[in-house]
This record gives sequence, structure tokens and C-alpha cells, in this order.
Amino acid sequence: MTPTKRIGILTSGGDCAGLNAVIRAVVHRATTHYGWQVVGIEDGTQGLLSRPVRYLNLDLNMVDGTMMRQGGTVLGTTNKGDPFAYPMADGSTRDRSQEIIGGLRELGVDTLIGIGGDGSMAILRRLAAIGGIKLIGVPKTIDNDLGITETSVGFDTAVAVATEALDRLQPTAASHDRVMVLEVMGRDAGHIALTAGIAGGADVILLPELSWSIEGVAAKIRQVQRNGRNFALVVVSEAVKTAEGAAARKEFADGQKRYGGIGNYIGHLISEATGAETRVTVLGHVQRGCPPSYRDRLLASAFGVRAVDLIAEGKSDRLLAWSNRQVIDVPIEEAIAAYASVDTASTLVQTARGLGIYIGDVDG
Amino acid sequence: MTPTKRIGILTSGGDCAGLNAVIRAVVHRATTHYGWQVVGIEDGTQGLLSRPVRYLNLDLNMVDGTMMRQGGTVLGTTNKGDPFAYPMADGSTRDRSQEIIGGLRELGVDTLIGIGGDGSMAILRRLAAIGGIKLIGVPKTIDNDLGITETSVGFDTAVAVATEALDRLQPTAASHDRVMVLEVMGRDAGHIALTAGIAGGADVILLPELSWSIEGVAAKIRQVQRNGRNFALVVVSEAVKTAEGAAARKEFADGQKRYGGIGNYIGHLISEATGAETRVTVLGHVQRGCPPSYRDRLLASAFGVRAVDLIAEGKSDRLLAWSNRQVIDVPIEEAIAAYASVDTASTLVQTARGLGIYIGDVDG
Amino acid sequence: MTPTKRIGILTSGGDCAGLNAVIRAVVHRATTHYGWQVVGIEDGTQGLLSRPVRYLNLDLNMVDGTMMRQGGTVLGTTNKGDPFAYPMADGSTRDRSQEIIGGLRELGVDTLIGIGGDGSMAILRRLAAIGGIKLIGVPKTIDNDLGITETSVGFDTAVAVATEALDRLQPTAASHDRVMVLEVMGRDAGHIALTAGIAGGADVILLPELSWSIEGVAAKIRQVQRNGRNFALVVVSEAVKTAEGAAARKEFADGQKRYGGIGNYIGHLISEATGAETRVTVLGHVQRGCPPSYRDRLLASAFGVRAVDLIAEGKSDRLLAWSNRQVIDVPIEEAIAAYASVDTASTLVQTARGLGIYIGDVDG
Amino acid sequence: MTPTKRIGILTSGGDCAGLNAVIRAVVHRATTHYGWQVVGIEDGTQGLLSRPVRYLNLDLNMVDGTMMRQGGTVLGTTNKGDPFAYPMADGSTRDRSQEIIGGLRELGVDTLIGIGGDGSMAILRRLAAIGGIKLIGVPKTIDNDLGITETSVGFDTAVAVATEALDRLQPTAASHDRVMVLEVMGRDAGHIALTAGIAGGADVILLPELSWSIEGVAAKIRQVQRNGRNFALVVVSEAVKTAEGAAARKEFADGQKRYGGIGNYIGHLISEATGAETRVTVLGHVQRGCPPSYRDRLLASAFGVRAVDLIAEGKSDRLLAWSNRQVIDVPIEEAIAAYASVDTASTLVQTARGLGIYIGDVDG
Repeated sequence: MTPTKRIGILTSGGDCAGLNAVIRAVVHRATTHYGWQVVGIEDGTQGLLSRPVRYLNLDLNMVDGTMMRQGGTVLGTTNKGDPFAYPMADGSTRDRSQEIIGGLRELGVDTLIGIGGDGSMAILRRLAAIGGIKLIGVPKTIDNDLGITETSVGFDTAVAVATEALDRLQPTAASHDRVMVLEVMGRDAGHIALTAGIAGGADVILLPELSWSIEGVAAKIRQVQRNGRNFALVVVSEAVKTAEGAAARKEFADGQKRYGGIGNYIGHLISEATGAETRVTVLGHVQRGCPPSYRDRLLASAFGVRAVDLIAEGKSDRLLAWSNRQVIDVPIEEAIAAYASVDTASTLVQTARGLGIYIGDVDG
Repeated sequence: MTPTKRIGILTSGGDCAGLNAVIRAVVHRATTHYGWQVVGIEDGTQGLLSRPVRYLNLDLNMVDGTMMRQGGTVLGTTNKGDPFAYPMADGSTRDRSQEIIGGLRELGVDTLIGIGGDGSMAILRRLAAIGGIKLIGVPKTIDNDLGITETSVGFDTAVAVATEALDRLQPTAASHDRVMVLEVMGRDAGHIALTAGIAGGADVILLPELSWSIEGVAAKIRQVQRNGRNFALVVVSEAVKTAEGAAARKEFADGQKRYGGIGNYIGHLISEATGAETRVTVLGHVQRGCPPSYRDRLLASAFGVRAVDLIAEGKSDRLLAWSNRQVIDVPIEEAIAAYASVDTASTLVQTARGLGIYIGDVDG
Repeated sequence: MTPTKRIGILTSGGDCAGLNAVIRAVVHRATTHYGWQVVGIEDGTQGLLSRPVRYLNLDLNMVDGTMMRQGGTVLGTTNKGDPFAYPMADGSTRDRSQEIIGGLRELGVDTLIGIGGDGSMAILRRLAAIGGIKLIGVPKTIDNDLGITETSVGFDTAVAVATEALDRLQPTAASHDRVMVLEVMGRDAGHIALTAGIAGGADVILLPELSWSIEGVAAKIRQVQRNGRNFALVVVSEAVKTAEGAAARKEFADGQKRYGGIGNYIGHLISEATGAETRVTVLGHVQRGCPPSYRDRLLASAFGVRAVDLIAEGKSDRLLAWSNRQVIDVPIEEAIAAYASVDTASTLVQTARGLGIYIGDVDG
Repeated sequence: MTPTKRIGILTSGGDCAGLNAVIRAVVHRATTHYGWQVVGIEDGTQGLLSRPVRYLNLDLNMVDGTMMRQGGTVLGTTNKGDPFAYPMADGSTRDRSQEIIGGLRELGVDTLIGIGGDGSMAILRRLAAIGGIKLIGVPKTIDNDLGITETSVGFDTAVAVATEALDRLQPTAASHDRVMVLEVMGRDAGHIALTAGIAGGADVILLPELSWSIEGVAAKIRQVQRNGRNFALVVVSEAVKTAEGAAARKEFADGQKRYGGIGNYIGHLISEATGAETRVTVLGHVQRGCPPSYRDRLLASAFGVRAVDLIAEGKSDRLLAWSNRQVIDVPIEEAIAAYASVDTASTLVQTARGLGIYIGDVDG
């Protein structure tokens, strides 16, 4: 009797909304259509370092029902512990990649679906190459910085949460004549800030990709006030930078330290420059754990089904991507290389400028 | 002294989420960047039939703040009263197009931004041609049946509401071992049903575009039960049809009448065929009036800004569209012709089939 | 060695939001504080009629995490099958109460926490009396018709959903100059309609408890129109009645049948009486399955903890109730007798009248 | 001809959800039932210090529609500038109370509805006494620290937002095996923390009212881990204190400064004591500006109607309160004196303890 094919699945890197919907779609397609077994590896590659290996046998009953509607990942994840330079208790690092490959062998798995961002994909690809593992990647990141795909699992929900925060800050801003500053996530890319800022009616959006000045911000806020509106909404990306020289960069870094983060520091600068009463909200982890939006579930479902089909087609070393209303697949290497920060010529940047939002000093 | 340019704006057809965000973006761009005046015409073309013409002078103070976050349209709209065949009190119809053109002249407006679906666009285009009005169209429809654009204002929110309804029906279905049927809007296109159905974890999705049978539905529900799950979710598009012959069509029409609508009738058929306890929810108008999702506000903002820029560029008779992450513009005539129901070879249909969802008898 | 105490828990009657939070609280308190075992019986008394009895051993790991946040009941429930007159396949009924008691014995359970409404409590109480079972009841009903408690598990969420529906209908009503009718649940009590109607800005609220007339409704709608507002919101309780004579009652019943339910019929009557364009939404089961509001989870948690403590105190035949910011307990018999429809002298009725809402012809 | 009665209304202190619903109810009752005029004073007492006085004439058209559904206050508010010790530009303070009374005279208003917390009520009461103004107070505070009323406008929404944040942090906590700390508002009272903590499934709740120790917190987290759950949720009230001596208090104050607030500091302490990976979210102003819950709108409506009726009855110097399902009114002086922090013998504290939540070292 032919043994049934077994495939592994793991989530890696920071959690986000929609991971469970990918897992569900994979299990549905693999078990029902192909009759395969699906092994869910716990806590990313960490589960493969444990002995015995930590995993769940995933079947329809486990993944049906409410799971796709829930944030986080039922498998657990981690953004620590590069297996090629694993941090040991004594402060040294060690290459533990062979242990991970051994873990996969122990599970009887030679095909792996990895759900992660660029960092995770780079690691999984090296592991796959060494261990002769067939790897299919599913892109997830709230930062949306994978250039090969129009959008990744988790981004839509993160933007929805950030926009909702602006919706909630606006009435307080208006009632108290305040400038409300909202610091959002996104790492080195300003996608969350730009998208939520437009949708949430911001007056100022500060991105890592566009140089800005506190004078420019203050001028916008004064213009708003001259037009008879006594409040303003400011969105600040977590990795906003200052452009001008080493001294300015030091002052900028010191200011963030002194005021407890970039949002707080920019709030302080705005208050100083305009005299306006300013309040700062740092949105934080609620951008990740929220129940997934319908779009993240849709994207996750399309990716999950296609990932399994790619395996059936004998493909490997491919990352799924969303492009022009379709799921496509590209070499993982190419995908990792295609980092995408905000394109300053994009429709969204033009829309922001068209609405008079201050997003930096260089005019389009 | 040169008189300031005045442009008109109106909303036409069934209301949906995001209309106010279009209006806000238009007013922002037109008044702040170009220094134009914006006249908001009330209740679609109805406002232009009244004497005096009913309108609002729109300025920044009116549109700022919470307006973009609200459902509906502050201008009012109508889906009654084709001006070329206007229904009169005595039952006759009359061509009142010249009155509408006269109304625009009274307002001093020769450029119009019309926000509507294909029906509204066809009427506005005829009016514009007769009256020498420059017309720019912004597409809105929860049905998403305008093929020229990937998505229209209002669709995203409608799908989110329909998905949320499935999220709320699932626990009741599971607690009571029931089949829950959800009837959603969409006119002759199954986009809402298909998208929400996948995202909301439906087991069966019935669309106008795909032929189906009650035997197929029942077989799927029995399969779900065999797998150990005692409930199922069924999404039914409001315009679902039956394919087989005149007699079957009559029975189908009679059934809908007898059971009070398509959702209720299909619920009855499922109950008969499977013995399962069935409950039906007709979602109705909550799909329209909901606060707009961030995506509908984003799309609306991009369209609103671009509509004004097109006028500044001297363009006319163009409809805006979203295509491959950009706002483009196309001849309105072409846009009206490009009706788009669900493409049965699309990624979403494949995803639905990949998840084992029953969406019709003909296999892809 | 003393065997550990085992208690049973079941949910009975229509599902609602907050049931899982009761179960979680019971398991927490019973297992952690008292060291007892908790047996979750499936599908209400149905699980006790099966052989083997259908049940789950509930422990902390099963109930922790997301369960309290989810609608429905993980145990399943039923509102069919009175065990004292159980409907048999041949159309007869049979007393199957001894089978249920036998089922509890099989489980080694002589103490039961029953979560249900008045109907379920009456049945469970008879069973407990016959079988020598110690019974503690936890009140749940979206109808809020248990007079002994200020509120029951599930009511708060149901009202929140109904209010949200009004929030979503209002923009559509305003955009189209329509009268929107919302039919809500509540059985013979108007609590959901009254509470959501006030909170959701309704102009008309029709309750089973107050006599009304279509003339009164129409007069209110005309008054609203005279004041310059072209739309109105109407909330209709599912069990609204007509007061006037047998002929009127027949016409009223016929009208509901002809137009497909009470909401649709009243929508038709309003349209006829005022000429206003009318649309009807029947909210249905989304009032039940929604994730529980914080208040339903709070109430559920307080009830769950106290139910276990009552068992530890040796109490039986008691129903928990919320009264003046405290959990109290009362004899179940007394609780069942205290049916509570809307008190027409209550603060809420006065508030509705104070806001000019039409809630019936007899003036306060 | 008798001049129409004019009453004033203002909102004072920090904004919250439900203020607009009070204003709407007041305008409805006063204009429709009594035929009075209502003058809305802008920015609390600040509007009365301006010359000309800043105000809005409020009528039905202004307050109907979406206003009751929106957060914040259309009148604006302030929590600055005690008129009896008004901070002047030169750093001195001045008694400007006569200017405020003069402002009310200018408006032709001798009756005032003030919506505020205890601080605002104390000031308004002094002003009313001096100026011979009739004053009715409506209680609002997200902190719920007014002992005379079971709940105040704004509290319900704030708790709902805080609970929702826990719902969103839980999946991330579980996915990453983290301890998530949520810092919530509440000033010196722990009501938000306690209520949201129970409803949101917290393992630890730290309140200003109960003494706690980091050892106690760590012991609870270790217990959770021993039970097989690798994450925990911790809610921290913004005014949590340390009990032990001057040195400990200094260290506690220093720690908050060093780590940027109480939430961050306690997160650090937990990480140190348990080795757990910890993340901190400071919820901030989104607790205020959110659209009001149905309960806040209901309470606001009941208060607004009754406030006007009290004026009609010739009452003055009364604060409205919610007590045992009714609106009552009490002398403002008495209400101000009745500060209410969390009652450590309350049902909620017992429920928290019953669920095994760590809320302090002294056991109930």
C-alpha cells in the first residue's frame, strides 16, 4: 500500500491576522482534494528544534468552524532564533540547521508550506536547500513590504485597525481643539501610515520614504486652523527618519529616547512649533491580533489553496503573490530581493497630495 | 475680474458606503488646489427638476470632519425618475431632460461630476450630450458589476457586512445543528455572494452565473455531516436562477413567491432535501448604509481627487476606474458596455472550488 | 480515596451570546478553586437521551483562550423535545424523563447547572425533582423576559446588534427619503425593540405591550416630515399585536401572511397611509450568534462563579439573578412565575415618550 | 407676548462617548414638548469668557440624524481654566467668574444644563450660586467615579474599547507565548480596569484600590504556565500605586519615568520576575472618542429628557443619577462628595477572585 503523502506547514515571524485562514485552506485542499496528511509544526522552526518535535496533526475538524475568523496562529510562531546563528545561553551562536532538517525527517515530511515575511523566507529557503525540502512560501506581513505581491496576509487588517483608531481620535481632537498624533507600525515602510492616513482623514502623514520637516508639519496645521478647523490628525510611521546630517540625526534619536518613542517626540515637536495642545497614541500590537478582515481571509484562502496545488504540480522554491486579481507564483529568491517601500509616484501618494495632506517637503 | 469656475456634483442610483468620501475629496481638491466652487445637487437629477433648483454650496467646513466616515450621501440620491421618460401623476411619461439642463444653467454649472452605476451613467451621458455639459463619472455600486473597473465605491463595505453576517450566523448554526441560509444583494451579479461566501466560510454559494441543483446542494450538506460537522452555511445571491426549462422556471418563480423570496425558498428546498433544520436571513439594506470601510474611503478619495484633475485637464465624458493599483479613465460609453458578472474562470471561483465549496454543478 | 465531586452543565433553549462565558467561569471556579470535575452535556437534554450519553469533560485548557469571546455554545443546545412529552417518529409523544435521569446517573452527576430561559427552567426543575438532582439555574434569554433578574445573558448583545442595524439603516433612509422598518426579536416582550429603538434614534417603536394604530404611526411620520426631515426609522417587535376585535385580528393575521411577516406588513401599511417609500429589514438570527458584548461576558462570569459557589454551599433549586449591582439567587419556581414584559411606567418608556417617539396611543 | 424660555447647555471636562446623545435629548424635549429655545455654549465655560459669547442655537434639525451616534461633543469642551483661578498669560491667576455670569446674561439664559464630572460640577455649582443661575447637572465620566450614580455617560463605551483591546491582544499573546500588558484609563479609580479585565479574560488586574506585589503577579503568571498556557493578559490601571514606604514609592515613581509610564514599567518588572517575553499597549484616547455604545446613548437619552423635565418642575442644583433602573436626582453637593473607587467587597471583585484573577495580595 502506498503511504499517504504528508506535508508540513508552519508560521514564522511576527503574527498577524489571516494566518489561521491560510492554515485552514491548506488543510481543506490537501486533505479533501488530494487525500494528504497535514502536519502543523508549532512555533515556527522552534517546534522542529524540540525533541520530540512539537506538532499537531491537522484535519478538517480542527480547522473548520471559527478558526479562520480568529487572529493569531493556532500553530504559534516566533521571530527569534535564526537556526543558522542560534543564540545560545552562553551568549554564543550556533548553527542548528541540521537539527531542524532532522526534525522534518522525524515527521516524515519532505514538503513544507512556510507562511512568513522576507526574513523567514530567506531562512526557510536556506534550510530547504540544505535538507532537500520542497518549499512553498505564503507571504504575510502587516508592513506590506514584499514588492513581488500587491498585498500580503495581515496588511489589510492592520490598516483597518489604524484607520479605526483615527476615526476614534477625531471626535476627541475636535471636542478639545487638539492635534492628535497616531504612531502606527510598518517597520521601514510607510504603507500602513499612508493608507490609513488617507482613509482616516489625516492632515499630516509622516513616512520613512519621504523627507519632511517640522516646519512643514507646523505650516499645514496652521493652514488647517486658518480654514476654521481647530484640530488636526497626524499619522507617524514607526520608522520615520530625519534627513539632515549627523548632528540632526543624533538629536532626533535623543529626542525619541527622551520622549519615549517617535510618536511622542513628534507630538512634542508639534506642540512646540504650533502651540497646539497635542496628544499621542501609540497603536501597538492591536494592529496584529485583531480578527482578520474579510480581505485577509480571502487572500489567505486563495493562497492556501494554491500552495497545495503547486505542491501537487511538483513545484518548489516558489512564493505565492497577488497580482492583478490573480494568484501567481515566483521564485522565492526573486521575491526576497523585491523589497517595496512606498512608491512616491504611486496613486496613493498622489491622492494624499491631492487632498492637501502634508506628506513631506518635496512637492509632486 | 474672472468669475470663479463652478462645478456640479451629484449622487445617483442606490446609495452605498463611500459616497460622502468622494464628495469630500472633490471639494478638497477643487476648492483648495484650483480655487473652484463646488455645487452639490440634491437627490440626483431630482434636485435639478425642482424650481428653484435644490442644491448646497459645498466648502471645506461642510465636508471636513466626520462626513467621510459616514454612510449614505449628504446630497441625497434617487433611483427613480428617468428624465427621458419621467413618470407623471397621470401614468404617462414625459421627456424632462431640458428641465434638467435648464437647472444646471440656473446653477451656472457646465461641468458635472456624477457618482453612479451603469444606469445613472447612461442617463447622465445623454443629458451631457444634449446640454453640452462636461461630464466626469465616478463608479459606485455594491454589485461591482462595472467591468471596466476592478472595484467600485461601496462594494468593499457591502462584502464586509455580508461576511460579518456569516460570522454571526456560524455560532448559532453550530449550537443548533442547523443549515443557515444568508440571502445577499448583488442584482444580476454574484460578486457579493462569492466574495463574502469564501471569506465567511460558506459551504454552499449560489450565484446567478453558475447553474446549480438542489441535489448538488444537498449532497454537499450531507458530505459536511458525514465529516462530523452538523451545521452548514449557505449564501444565496438575490438573483439566483434555475436553468431548466419553462416549467421549472415557473415553479421556481412560484416557490419564491410562496415562501417570500429566494432565500426563504431555497431554505425550504434544502430542508426538504436533507431533513436539516434550516433558518434564513435576508440581509437587506444594512449592506448599503454601513459606515464605509477604509478601502471604500481610499478608493473614493482617489477617484474624487482624480475627477477634479480630469476637469482641469479639459477632459470630459470619462469614467474613472481602478485598474492594477492605479486610477485610470475610460470613455463612459465603453464603461457602460463592459458589464461584468462573475468570471467563472476567476481566482475566486477557483478558490471556492479548491475549498470544496459547492458553487454549481459544472466543474471547472 | 474520596472520589472527586462531578457536576454537570448544559445549555438549553435558543442560543445567545455569552453562553460560553458562563461555561468558562463555571469550569474555572469548579476545577481551580474546588477541585471538582465538570461534565459538559451536549445539545441540552438531548445529549442525556443518547446512549452512550454525549458529553465533554471540561477542563481549563478547553475553556481558556478564545472561548469566552465567541457566540453560541460549545456544548450545543436545543429548543426541541420536551422530555415529558417527547415527539416520537409516529407523531405520538412519550415521557422520556427517566432516560434523562438515567443519563445523569451514567455520568455520575447528581448536581446540574442549567443555563436557559423560563421554559428550560420549568423542565429542568421537574427533572431535578423526580431524579433527586441538585439544580442551579443561570438565566439566559435575548428576550429579557425573566422578571426576577434585571437582565439575562444574551440580552445586551442582542440589543447592541439591533441598535447597530438602525445605525446602518439611517444613512440609507436619509439618502433616499425613506421610512425604514426594522423587525427585531423578543418573543412576547418588547425589550429589544424598546431599548434599541431609543438608543438607535427611532421615531416609532411598536411593542406587544402597548396598543398602537397605523393612524398614530402615520401622524408621527408626517410630523417628522413637517419638521423638515424626510426619513424615519421604525422598530417593530416580532410579536406586535392589534387590539381591536376579532375581525381586526383576522385582518392583521392575514396581512402578516400576505406580506411575509409582521415587519413587511407594517411597512406596507405605513406606505399606504403616508405615501412614503418604505423598506423593511428583518434582523433575524444575527441577533443571537454575534460575539458577546463585554456586559454579557461580565454577567456570564459573575453568574458562572456564583453558580459553583451555591453548589459548594449546598444550595439547590435556585436561579441566579442580577439585582441592584449584585448577583442574588431565588427559588426557581418564583423566577419562572415572574414573567416580565415591558413595564409601561418604566424609565425607558418615559424616555421614549420624552423624546417624542411614537410608542402607542395611550399617553403617559 | 411672553418671550420664550431659553436654557443653556454646555459640556465640560474631558470628552467621552455619549455627550452628543445628551445634547440631542435635551433639545428634543425642550423644543418639542415645552417649546423652549436651547443655546449650546461652546467649549465649556470658555465660550462664556469670549466676547461675543460663542454659542450655537440648537434646534431639531441640528441634532437629528447622525449626531447621537457620534463620539465627542459638537459643542466642544475643555478641561482647562478654572474660572475662579484662571491662569493668565503672565503666570498669575484671576477670578473670572463674573465674566462667565455676564456671558450667560448676554445670552438671556438663567437656566443651565451642565454635563460634566465632579470637578466641573463643583465649579458650575459655585458659578450658579453666585450668579443666581438654575443648574441641572448630567454626570459624565469614563472613570465612573461618581458614587451617587451606578454609571455615568461615557463609562460603558470606554470599557467596551478596553475589552476589545484585550480581545485583540489575546491572539498575539498566544501566538508568541507572551505576557501582554494593557494600560487603561480611569484616573484614581480602577473601574475600567476591573470591568474590562474580567470581560476580556485577563489573568492579572492591577487597581489603585488594592495593594499588590510583583511577586504576586509573577506567581499567577507561573501558575498559568504550569497549567499549560504559555501566555497571559495583564490589565493595569493608570493610577496603580505601590504601598510600601517612601523609598519604595520613590523607586516606583522613578521606574515609571525611566520606562515611560506605569504600563511599561510593570511590563518590565514582569519580564524581570518571570523571564517571560512581555509587550505593553497603552490604550490612550481611543477610549474617549469612540462612537457611543447603545448603553451610553440610552443613559444619555434618559438623562437628557429628565434634565429638561426637572427644569420644568422648577428644580435646581440637582444632579441626575442612575439608580436601580431609574433616573433619580440628588443635590449636586451630595453627589460631588460621594466619590466612588472600586468597592473591594463588590460582586465584580468577588467575580475576579472567583475566576482566579490576581487582583492583589489581600485575599477576600
